[in-house]
Amino acid sequence: MSETEEAQAAVAGLVPRLRRICGEDGVLTDTAQRRTYESDGLPHHRALPGVVVLPTTADQVAAVVRLCAENGVPFVPRGAGTGLSGGALPRAEGVLLVTSRMRRILEIDVENECAVVEPGVANLDVTRAAAPHGYYYAPDPSSQQVCSVGGNVAENSGGAHCLKYGFTVNHVRGLDIVTPAGEQVSLGGKNPGAHGYDLVGAFIGSEGTLGVATRITVGLTRSPERTVTLLSAFTSMDAGGRAVSSIISAGVLPSAVEMMDALAIEAAERAVACDYPEGAAAVLVVELDGPAAEVEAQLAEVTRLCAEAGAFETRAASDADERARIWKGRKSAFAAVGRISPAYIVQDGVVPRTALPEVLRRITELSAASGIRVANVFHAGDGNLHPLVLFDDAEPGAAERAEEVSGAILDLCIEHGGSITGEHGVGVDKACKMPRMYGPDDLATFDLFRRALDPGGLANPDKLLPTPRLCGERPGVRTGVHPLVEAGKAEQF
Amino acid sequence: MSETEEAQAAVAGLVPRLRRICGEDGVLTDTAQRRTYESDGLPHHRALPGVVVLPTTADQVAAVVRLCAENGVPFVPRGAGTGLSGGALPRAEGVLLVTSRMRRILEIDVENECAVVEPGVANLDVTRAAAPHGYYYAPDPSSQQVCSVGGNVAENSGGAHCLKYGFTVNHVRGLDIVTPAGEQVSLGGKNPGAHGYDLVGAFIGSEGTLGVATRITVGLTRSPERTVTLLSAFTSMDAGGRAVSSIISAGVLPSAVEMMDALAIEAAERAVACDYPEGAAAVLVVELDGPAAEVEAQLAEVTRLCAEAGAFETRAASDADERARIWKGRKSAFAAVGRISPAYIVQDGVVPRTALPEVLRRITELSAASGIRVANVFHAGDGNLHPLVLFDDAEPGAAERAEEVSGAILDLCIEHGGSITGEHGVGVDKACKMPRMYGPDDLATFDLFRRALDPGGLANPDKLLPTPRLCGERPGVRTGVHPLVEAGKAEQF
Repeated sequence: MSETEEAQAAVAGLVPRLRRICGEDGVLTDTAQRRTYESDGLPHHRALPGVVVLPTTADQVAAVVRLCAENGVPFVPRGAGTGLSGGALPRAEGVLLVTSRMRRILEIDVENECAVVEPGVANLDVTRAAAPHGYYYAPDPSSQQVCSVGGNVAENSGGAHCLKYGFTVNHVRGLDIVTPAGEQVSLGGKNPGAHGYDLVGAFIGSEGTLGVATRITVGLTRSPERTVTLLSAFTSMDAGGRAVSSIISAGVLPSAVEMMDALAIEAAERAVACDYPEGAAAVLVVELDGPAAEVEAQLAEVTRLCAEAGAFETRAASDADERARIWKGRKSAFAAVGRISPAYIVQDGVVPRTALPEVLRRITELSAASGIRVANVFHAGDGNLHPLVLFDDAEPGAAERAEEVSGAILDLCIEHGGSITGEHGVGVDKACKMPRMYGPDDLATFDLFRRALDPGGLANPDKLLPTPRLCGERPGVRTGVHPLVEAGKAEQF
Repeated sequence: MSETEEAQAAVAGLVPRLRRICGEDGVLTDTAQRRTYESDGLPHHRALPGVVVLPTTADQVAAVVRLCAENGVPFVPRGAGTGLSGGALPRAEGVLLVTSRMRRILEIDVENECAVVEPGVANLDVTRAAAPHGYYYAPDPSSQQVCSVGGNVAENSGGAHCLKYGFTVNHVRGLDIVTPAGEQVSLGGKNPGAHGYDLVGAFIGSEGTLGVATRITVGLTRSPERTVTLLSAFTSMDAGGRAVSSIISAGVLPSAVEMMDALAIEAAERAVACDYPEGAAAVLVVELDGPAAEVEAQLAEVTRLCAEAGAFETRAASDADERARIWKGRKSAFAAVGRISPAYIVQDGVVPRTALPEVLRRITELSAASGIRVANVFHAGDGNLHPLVLFDDAEPGAAERAEEVSGAILDLCIEHGGSITGEHGVGVDKACKMPRMYGPDDLATFDLFRRALDPGGLANPDKLLPTPRLCGERPGVRTGVHPLVEAGKAEQF
């Protein structure tokens, strides 16, 4: 037997014990069933998991993880599988631990303004449960109807309203986790005080490399008295960018400032007929929320600032239907590009807000030089870009060129002092990019921390941090910008 | 030589090399000079440091820490020494690393709404530097005129405005640290994205056990358009407590809700003649800030809610002088108790807001039963109690009885689902209390993390986590409430 076959045999050997832990229907070994789980929302990375388990309790999770630890078998946790960085990519010689059956909302505690949930609960279901009490759960990834709170914790998910309300890490107060050794540990709580190491924060965004969350306490946010959504249309991206800068500089803090370019607008129109103003080269979606008096004052100011920046039309929607129509275009944009391109890559990078106009111009140049179309849909308020790199997968070499453009955009982000991911996480997709953000000592410190909790390296290996096997022998040494974005070189490809 | 003498000789042997690193005037060996540093703001724990170093750069800090690591000598980092949990208690056989000469504000970055500072910078100096740009640094411990930002990071300091603005951890974006191995590592940054482990959060509140921060990037908060401070007086603590509950339940989010009882008011009056309403058994200080329209609306609502709860007088102050007068009483309260008691202990605990009235009643009972007076001054909005336990240190046994009452108050906090510290930290004072908050597996996980970065146990030993040497052989096993607070027992002592 090869080493690979031996490893696969090891995981197969665990099946009877896994069945005793999770029950007959809690363990999937059939190839067709396992196939369902071979990728998450990053479809070009695929692997058939050795076995899939569906635990229903923290004790079952702990028993599965302990069994893995005792037998040197790796495990990969997975929520709803909507992640965009391959954080839940399974391993052929490993256990895929899926939390989808742990979906109880255990408590809505109005006094303490929090909810206690199991990891498989869908993000939007927290808001649905809190709404009758006048609260909601603030982090709102585009996938919020299906993505799980546990997955949000793993990836520190954001959403359109991060600008004002922050990321998952800003809302989680407490976690019960199962460590890679199979121990059940409580971190934080409903009213966390200032004591001990704040490992809640370190766990959030750890992508399953520090264990599995089995119970999550999230803060709830009071539903605002008033919410208004503006749609403002511009004849150039530069004008839209100027509007963003002047809104932020004026000290208005909208809950969301989203931007779409002409290609993204075209895709959204074809897909959902969102009726955005005709002839727009850029639209801004600006949402304001808070006490009615404050929102009214901000609405007037934002409308004025957009006009000053060159908006040729600004509409305000305050009832739920009108607001939903405006958001429909924005929220469908990712899926909608399927209408104008056979295939695409969703990139996720961050630039300081001040560098936005420059980076957008450079993306346009990259696109022109490579013949690869790029649609821009992004959280403009916090500089979180989501370029959609379009290509035809039937055309030979197109996928590779698209990957190159996508990588070059990330290099632009780094070059301008930004970062390699805003909210989609590192996963398997960007683990090899980490040395671009961190020096060898920084990465060594991360690794010390990881190995402290997971000395055997069994908890979601190869995700989050670079490994020599996947990233080359010397993952720490790649420096400088991508060759494609070095000054003057972009037009050569 | 005894083991202690050998250890002291080891640190003395480092002096020539420390002088080469920090310069002649950067190393203090004289006993009188070292005496200055023998305690922080928790004066009943004292130790003369083996040697005191005053580095001026991160490289010097790294060199000192490396020297300690190579020679197995412990080090204790210290900022301004205002901490209240003994986190900077020196060691006789160790190096005390004082950051007071690293006090440059390196940058005020208005575009990115942040400041980059050295660890020795005084908290209030960040606000002074940001104010001309319309910004301030939100965390505001009572000691903010002198306490250092580095010390705030070590203890995750709060302040009167935590209720709305959070703790230090909510404002620090990036840290350059020197690890216990002497390596210089960067965590986070001006625009941190969602990648890697969030060790910024884990470092904050780590009390020097994970190393020394040498450069700190903090977010700045825009100065509010309007700020109003209310002083509301009640004839009972219960009525004041009811007002707090109804303000919070109404969805108003004041920036501060502070409460003082009759004894604290008496002390403040004697010390600073703050002119609080006569005959008050409790006062609330409520501060509202934000856009003018919002503040006006909230002011009317809070005034009404206080009246409904039984306030016999409510004053609103909106100019800076009037506001300062109201705050003067509150902010001087700790020092002011010196006017009514020869000695006192400042306790720091948290209870869920809903348990406040019950816990305050129990504190009154404890005080009556023991004959030890307790003055209550606290952040009512977030349930962070600061009982001042008064005693006469000339009276035999009084200090011990005061310690017992102080400990029993902490037990009450734990019993009611709260925690052992709100903002003063764990330090040496409460390390042995950690097993009351955490189970053995939780503490073991903390310890794994600590030892990953500090395998030699040289970075501020004996702080933050319980050690058998100081807490008894089995620090993990003490459970249940303090004997003094068991039902019906309080009156027996």
